[in-house]
Order: sequence, then structure tokens, then C-alpha cells
Amino acid sequence: METISLHGIITARQIIYNYIKPSPLRYYHELSDKLGFEAYIKHENHLPTRSFKVRGGINFLSKLPSAHKKQGVITATRGNHGQSIAFAAAQFGVKATIVVPRGNNPEKNSAMQAYRAELIEYGDDFDEAREMCVKLQDEQGLYYIHPCMEPELVHGVGTYSLEIFEDLPNVNTIIVPIGGGSGICGAITVAKALNPNVNIIGVQAENAPAIYRTWKTGKYVETETCDTIADGLATRVPFSIPFSIIKNGVHDIILVSEEEIQEGILMALRYTHNLAEGAGAAALAAAVKLTDKLRGQIVVIIMSGGNIDIQTLKQVLMDS
Amino acid sequence: METISLHGIITARQIIYNYIKPSPLRYYHELSDKLGFEAYIKHENHLPTRSFKVRGGINFLSKLPSAHKKQGVITATRGNHGQSIAFAAAQFGVKATIVVPRGNNPEKNSAMQAYRAELIEYGDDFDEAREMCVKLQDEQGLYYIHPCMEPELVHGVGTYSLEIFEDLPNVNTIIVPIGGGSGICGAITVAKALNPNVNIIGVQAENAPAIYRTWKTGKYVETETCDTIADGLATRVPFSIPFSIIKNGVHDIILVSEEEIQEGILMALRYTHNLAEGAGAAALAAAVKLTDKLRGQIVVIIMSGGNIDIQTLKQVLMDS
Repeated sequence: METISLHGIITARQIIYNYIKPSPLRYYHELSDKLGFEAYIKHENHLPTRSFKVRGGINFLSKLPSAHKKQGVITATRGNHGQSIAFAAAQFGVKATIVVPRGNNPEKNSAMQAYRAELIEYGDDFDEAREMCVKLQDEQGLYYIHPCMEPELVHGVGTYSLEIFEDLPNVNTIIVPIGGGSGICGAITVAKALNPNVNIIGVQAENAPAIYRTWKTGKYVETETCDTIADGLATRVPFSIPFSIIKNGVHDIILVSEEEIQEGILMALRYTHNLAEGAGAAALAAAVKLTDKLRGQIVVIIMSGGNIDIQTLKQVLMDS
Repeated sequence: METISLHGIITARQIIYNYIKPSPLRYYHELSDKLGFEAYIKHENHLPTRSFKVRGGINFLSKLPSAHKKQGVITATRGNHGQSIAFAAAQFGVKATIVVPRGNNPEKNSAMQAYRAELIEYGDDFDEAREMCVKLQDEQGLYYIHPCMEPELVHGVGTYSLEIFEDLPNVNTIIVPIGGGSGICGAITVAKALNPNVNIIGVQAENAPAIYRTWKTGKYVETETCDTIADGLATRVPFSIPFSIIKNGVHDIILVSEEEIQEGILMALRYTHNLAEGAGAAALAAAVKLTDKLRGQIVVIIMSGGNIDIQTLKQVLMDS
């Protein structure tokens, strides 16, 4: 039996639609004219918490046994996963503790605190922050929600892919940013079950290419750093559950540079008038590199999140 | 019999939901903490064309007699009304000609052209552009859609207010930007019919205060100029149909300065991570000025549109 299944995603949908609505899938004329294919954007940035992650948090918390609910949960994040858990924990009356690396985006931090989550700063990056979760799990009996290894998180975020296949049955290609990998695992699982002819293309940052390199070489690769403007893509480590699905299901993985991600953010502003964070613009940045391969196709570009902070946005505009 | 009615709005809704979905009404924790009241944003910027106007365009075109549909339509705009008509005309297979003033926002122009509308540049502002419509209406037999005097436009945009009253029955106050006045006429009409205790507060730009002054003085006022960053509010003239509804139905009208509108755009970025154009941020700017009066209330702030261009956004961020 597979860890991640269409059945799990369909079940998740019954739950999450009590809390959120499907996100819009929107066709953009000007963008399509520019790219040479039919360009649709899946606006996960329009969801509460402005990120696809909220789907996973709701599904996960809804299924957490009541003993764990009483004791509370802990997780590590750069922001969107943490906002998702904080949002969902508030819905279900569960205490949430969120560990972020030092120097984390202050707007993301305050957004999590606004949902009344307790915030702890620890470590230099996401992977170090996770270590503190393990420590507090033991000391305080909190349930540690691993950001990339919980099937019910993947089932939850997989619901956006189900929406795509229903709204646009003749889609040819879906371009998905890869941070931990939950989003693309959902897309692969839905495509395999509903229409294996649909190509799922992943996107990583050149500066955080652990999954890309592991996929390309067949050897497990961790990177020393993951310093990218797209904090949602800033992981140094491939995790076993998502990687096992990615390796056999992804059609291609594209790397995008920091400059390309910045150009993606500008394109999102210009052609869609949406605020995309780095990870949310990465698939659009990749789409620009794929115009020849995708010519004439029907393509869905995942805008995974919109939580860019003002300082970063200002810098992107000043550099342009 | 009233020109604008709840019945007309309910009828419009049956039509427009074939083309668009209701927009999200979202509660913002951090913003509420800052403002001292329960702050909800009505995200009209999440609709197709990124503006509430699309509701009116669809409703209007759906009801246009087929003889007019065959000949085509013409209208004048600074952008959002024109995008709405261009979008709706494309849906109904009608040829649309759109007149914009010279020097109009180029991103809004190209968005209208992307829907295959014919664009004509004429005059120094919106009110001069309207003159060309009258001319071409006569010469070419086009149906002239007056941007502020067509009841079916008002009925269409009134649907967002119906959504608010259904989603949040205990709302106390709704803050609405006023350009031509269609949005606030919808809000007043729905409030009168469903719950007259709800206060409808309008917002105009200090630099384009024709309706404010006419309402305040009881004497018809046109202004010489309407030079504001909020192009959606840039009208020099009050029109009779919307004004007749506003004068007896609005609880208050607030003026906001250019600096306050810019601060509203920044607040939209910081607290909601949404891209608001000037008019779309005007109600948020007004909310900041009303914190004492609205303390403890349940307040809906209309984010009417998101079509800010990159140059203007850059300037707002540089000035901050």
C-alpha cells in the first residue's frame, strides 16, 4: 500500500472545504501571448495564510488523536508551514509551538504569532530549527509535526492538484516549486491516478538544489547552504517520503537562479498583479525557461504563496 | 420604483456566478490588533480582472439586447471598468471599443487589449475620454456604456455587498471607496434592504473630492482636476444616479490624502500580503483614520482592485 494515495487526498478534501474554499485557477491572456502556451496560474496565494500549506495543516490537525491535541504540537518552519499549523491549531483549539531559524522573515514570524502560536528562534536554518523540535518533543511531550514526512500534510496539499484536474481536464503540464516536496508529491499522486500523460515538472533554486541533485545523480545529496530569496525552497536535505514519490514521478526538475526568481516576482506583478513570494514565483520563472518545450501546451503554473516581506519586495523592484 | 434595487442585485447574482465565484472575505488578526476593531477585507482584487468592476460588466453584457450586441459597445475608463467590459464582451462575443485618456496606465491598457478590445486614447482625463464615446456612438452606432449611469452595472457590483451580508451577518460598518459611485450604491441598497443599522462609509481622494463636496455642501460640485495615485477614484464629476443614492444612504464620507493612500498600499502589503491599487487601498487608509469611531466594531474594508503598475508600486516603496 502506498503511503500517499488519491484516496487520502479525496478524504482530505472533504475536511478542508469546511475551512477553506478551492483556490482560483486563472487563465492569463497577456502571459500566454508572451510565453507561447496557454498559461494558467493556480492561485494558492489567495488562500488563508496566503500559501498552499494551509491545506495540509487543516487536514493534519483534523486527524490528530485527541491525546496529542491536548498536549499540543511543535514544528519547524521558515514561515508558510508554520502559518499553516498555527492557523489550523487555532481552528482546532490546539496549542502550537513553532521553531524558526534566527533571522527569519519578521513578517512571517508576526503572522504566526497573530494566530497565537508560541514562537521560538533557534539555529541558523530550517534544518537546524528542526533539531529543537526533537528536543522539545521529548522534554515537553509535544507532538512533533515533521514538515515533510507526515502523509496527512501531503494529502492535504494534494487537494490543489485535484482541483486542477477537475477545473482543467485537458491540462498538459503542471509546474510545481519544490521545497520539502509535499506539493509536488500531491501533483504526482493525482496525475498518476487520473491522467498519467500529464507532465509534472518540479522547480528548485540553484542555491538550494538538494532534491534536484539527488534525483539527477541517484545519490543522496545534502547541500552545505540553502541561501535563496525563495525561503520556501530553502531546504538542504531531501526527505525519504517525498523523494520516493518524486524520483519515479517527476518528468523533469528545473533549477532557477536568484535573478530568475526575482524576474518571476516581477512577472507576477506585471502580468497577474499578484504578490508572489520567491517560492511562489519560482514556477513562473521556470516557465520562462521552458517556452520552447511547452509551446502550444496547456500549462498550469503553481503560485504557491504570497508571503514576501516589504524589504525583499523593495529590493526586487530596486534591482529591476 | 427605485432605479437600483435589491431585486436587481439578486437577479444579477444568478448571472454572474456562471462566470465568476464569490470573492473571499477574510479576517486579519494582525490588522485587527493594530486597528482596534475586527477587520475583515473583502478581496475584490482576487476576481478575474482584479477588480469588483467585472461583476458589473458581466451583468450588463448579459442583458444587452442582441441588436446592440451585434453592433458592439464603447465605453471610457481609466482601467478597471474597461477591463470589466473587455472581459465581459469577450465572454459574450461582443466587439468592445475602449477610450482611455492619454497617458493612461500602460499595464491597464495592455490588459484591456489582451481581451481583444480596441483601445483609443483621447483627452486629458476620464471625463474628456467620455466625450469621444458620445462621438463614436453617433458615428458608428456603437452602444455607449456610461461607466456610472447604467443600473445593470450597479446591480452587478452590488453582488459583493450581498456576499458580505451573507458571510458576516453581524457586520457593523462597511468602508467603500467611491470613484463613479457604483460600489457604494450597491452597498447602500443592500444595507437598506437587509439591515439598515449597518453603516456605509464612503472614501474619496482629497485630490478628487467631487462627490464628497457635493454631499457636504448640498450643491453640485465639479472639480478642475482629479490628480491622484488612485486612478480608480479619479473623477471630477458627480453623476445623478449614484449621487441620488449616496446622498440619502451614506453614513459618512472620508477624504484620504495621497500620503495616506500610499500608506494604505503599504499596509495591504504588510498585513495582508495583497497587491492593492490606490483605490483598492483607500478604504484601508480611511480605516486607520477611523480607529476611534470604530473601536470594537466588526468592520469590512473593501479592497476594490489590485491593478497597480510596477512603476507606481516602486515609487510607493521608495517613498516609504
